[in-house]
Formats: sequence, structure tokens, C-alpha cells
Amino acid sequence: MPKQVDHRERREAIARALWRVVEQRGVAHLSLREVAREAGMSHGQLQHYFASREAMLTFAMDFATEQAASRVDRGLAELGDRPHPRDVLRVMLTGMLPLHPDARATSRMSAAYVLEALHDEHIQARARQGIAQGRTAVEQLVRRAIAEGHIPPDRDPVAETNLLLALTGFTTLIELDVIGPQDTLDAIDLHLDRLFTDSPAR
Amino acid sequence: MPKQVDHRERREAIARALWRVVEQRGVAHLSLREVAREAGMSHGQLQHYFASREAMLTFAMDFATEQAASRVDRGLAELGDRPHPRDVLRVMLTGMLPLHPDARATSRMSAAYVLEALHDEHIQARARQGIAQGRTAVEQLVRRAIAEGHIPPDRDPVAETNLLLALTGFTTLIELDVIGPQDTLDAIDLHLDRLFTDSPAR
Repeated sequence: MPKQVDHRERREAIARALWRVVEQRGVAHLSLREVAREAGMSHGQLQHYFASREAMLTFAMDFATEQAASRVDRGLAELGDRPHPRDVLRVMLTGMLPLHPDARATSRMSAAYVLEALHDEHIQARARQGIAQGRTAVEQLVRRAIAEGHIPPDRDPVAETNLLLALTGFTTLIELDVIGPQDTLDAIDLHLDRLFTDSPAR
Repeated sequence: MPKQVDHRERREAIARALWRVVEQRGVAHLSLREVAREAGMSHGQLQHYFASREAMLTFAMDFATEQAASRVDRGLAELGDRPHPRDVLRVMLTGMLPLHPDARATSRMSAAYVLEALHDEHIQARARQGIAQGRTAVEQLVRRAIAEGHIPPDRDPVAETNLLLALTGFTTLIELDVIGPQDTLDAIDLHLDRLFTDSPAR
């Protein structure tokens, strides 16, 4: 195996160990030492891959974002050619929610990262950039759907995009079992039904 | 000063110190020792008020919830007698968002608590109960507004309540400066305008 690939794979294995620490024991236990123990390596070995807690956390967050993006891409591929924008939005929105075990791991990682971001400028800039990119992608989709007549022309694309982004608020409600997965999907479908003038052909 | 009041005041001062640790340094630094330092007392003195990290965290969360409820109550009092349900909902929703410095402190406390809840059954039960009570209050308000003709009778009260709760998702978007306070209020007003058939008299 080429050395570069091996290095990347070890970093991904460490990132997964970090997710497990966050998921099972909480962000309070997120130290290089704790992650090394979970990954089954020594503190020194871990430092060969990550020089600092911040570098490890940032890589683990980037890897979680990549995994979430892959889930969304697989969902979009299943929609076939020329998918209806309502279906595209639904895949993007539900892909961000902890509705499946792997999505739960990345979602908890993301919540921990945002909390770290609040008192670390560098992490904040990265977290902000990632979410702002997602927001831009949703706004482009909304604007195109308005131009193509799928969404009424009198809708404000900025406010509609912001309301769609706010639906990520279901994350906490699902995690704490206040609202179940099916009720979440029902509410999202209701919101999308009111946004679009037409439904996808089935 | 009666001893009971003094004890309560010291506990509130410690809770505020805990909020500052969460806000400025993050939940990773949330230990009895760190909070004692921030509160300007010894570790031993702090233990006189809280026997464990969990007891301290739970009190700090309950106190944050009380403070948030007081903010909402003050907002509701300003609406006068017989307020329109749209105004009541707006006060409740915006009161949960980090739109003011004191609301930001309680909002960050709440985010830290939810993250702790994910790997602690006792904390999870409490966090779930608090949010479920808030959800029930919103659903009662929606059902009454339907019965009184402020919301169309064909609206599903459960799904509408869930969508309203999900708007707390603006919290992260405001904290990371992805969506500004005014854009947040515009989006919430747009959502409420579409929910209600009538507007409050101004």
C-alpha cells in the first residue's frame, strides 16, 4: 500500500475513534490521550498523525462533512437524470438530520464542533464557511426552482432559503426523542409542499 | 439576609460563572475546579454548594431555563390583555434564540447541556422533559388558535407545531453568523404570516 494512502487511512480511523468518544462519552473527554486510547494506539503514535487537539478535531469534522456529502450524493444519484428540485432539497435536508446511525455520528460531531467554534476563532471561521457554503447551494436551488416555475415567483428566495436551513433544528428534537423520525419527515414534506407549486412525477 | 436566600444566591452566582466558562472556554473546560476559579472560590467552597459536576450542570441549566422563561414572560406582559396568538408565538420563539447577550448565554448553556445529554441518561431525561414541555405549550397554543379561527381549520396541529419548534435551528445559524438577526426575524415573520389567517391589530 502506498505510504500516502496508509497515512490517510490511519487519520480516518483516528477520526472515527474521535466520533465514538464524542458520541459515547461527550466532548468533555475529547483529548488526544482519550482518542489515542479509543483508536488503540499510544499518545506518541497519535501525535505522528495529529500535532494538536485542534488539528485532530478539524480533520474529524472535515471527514464527517465529506461522509455527509457522500450520503447526499448517493441519495441524489438515486433520483436519476433531471431530478425535481423538491426531491433534491428533500435529500439535502434529510441528509443533514440524524435519521440513520452513520448520520447520527456525523451530526453529533458537528454539534460538538459548533460548540467548540463558539470560543475558538479559527474553528469558528471553518464552521461558518462550511454552513455558509451549504446555505449558498440551497439558495441557488431555490432561485433556479423559482426561475423554472416550480416555486411561485412572489416568494423571497433569501427568506425561503433561511427557513429551509432552520429545519436543521430538527436535529436536537430527534436526538432527544421529542419528535420522532416519521413526524420529522412529515413536517419537512408539509413545508416543501407549501413551497413548491408542483409535485415530482412518480 | 436569611441563610436560605444566601445559599440560593451563591448557587446562582456559581451558575453564572459556569455559563461564562461554557461561553468563553467551552464545555471541555467544564469542571468543578474550573468553575470554582471563575466564581472566585476554592474547590472546597464550591463543593459546599454542589456535590458533583452533574448537580452543578443541572442547576445551571435549570437556572438558564428559568431566566429564559422570565424573558418570555416579560415579553408576553408587554403584549397586554388578550394578546393575539401570533404575537404570543413570536415572543416564545424569538425568546429562545440568541438575539440578545443574556439570551446568548442561556442558549450556549442549553447547547452544552444537550451535548452532555447524549451520553448521560439522567441529563437526557431532564433535557427531553424541558423541551417536550415547551413543545406541548406551543401545540396547545396552535390548537386554540385553530379553534378560534386564527389558523385555518385544515392545518395539522402536530406538524405545524413541529415546524415551529424546528425554527430553533436558527440558533446555530445566528451563533456562527451565517444568518443575521434581522434576516432571522424576517423568516420567522414570513412563516407566521403563512400560518395565521389574520394579523394582530396594531
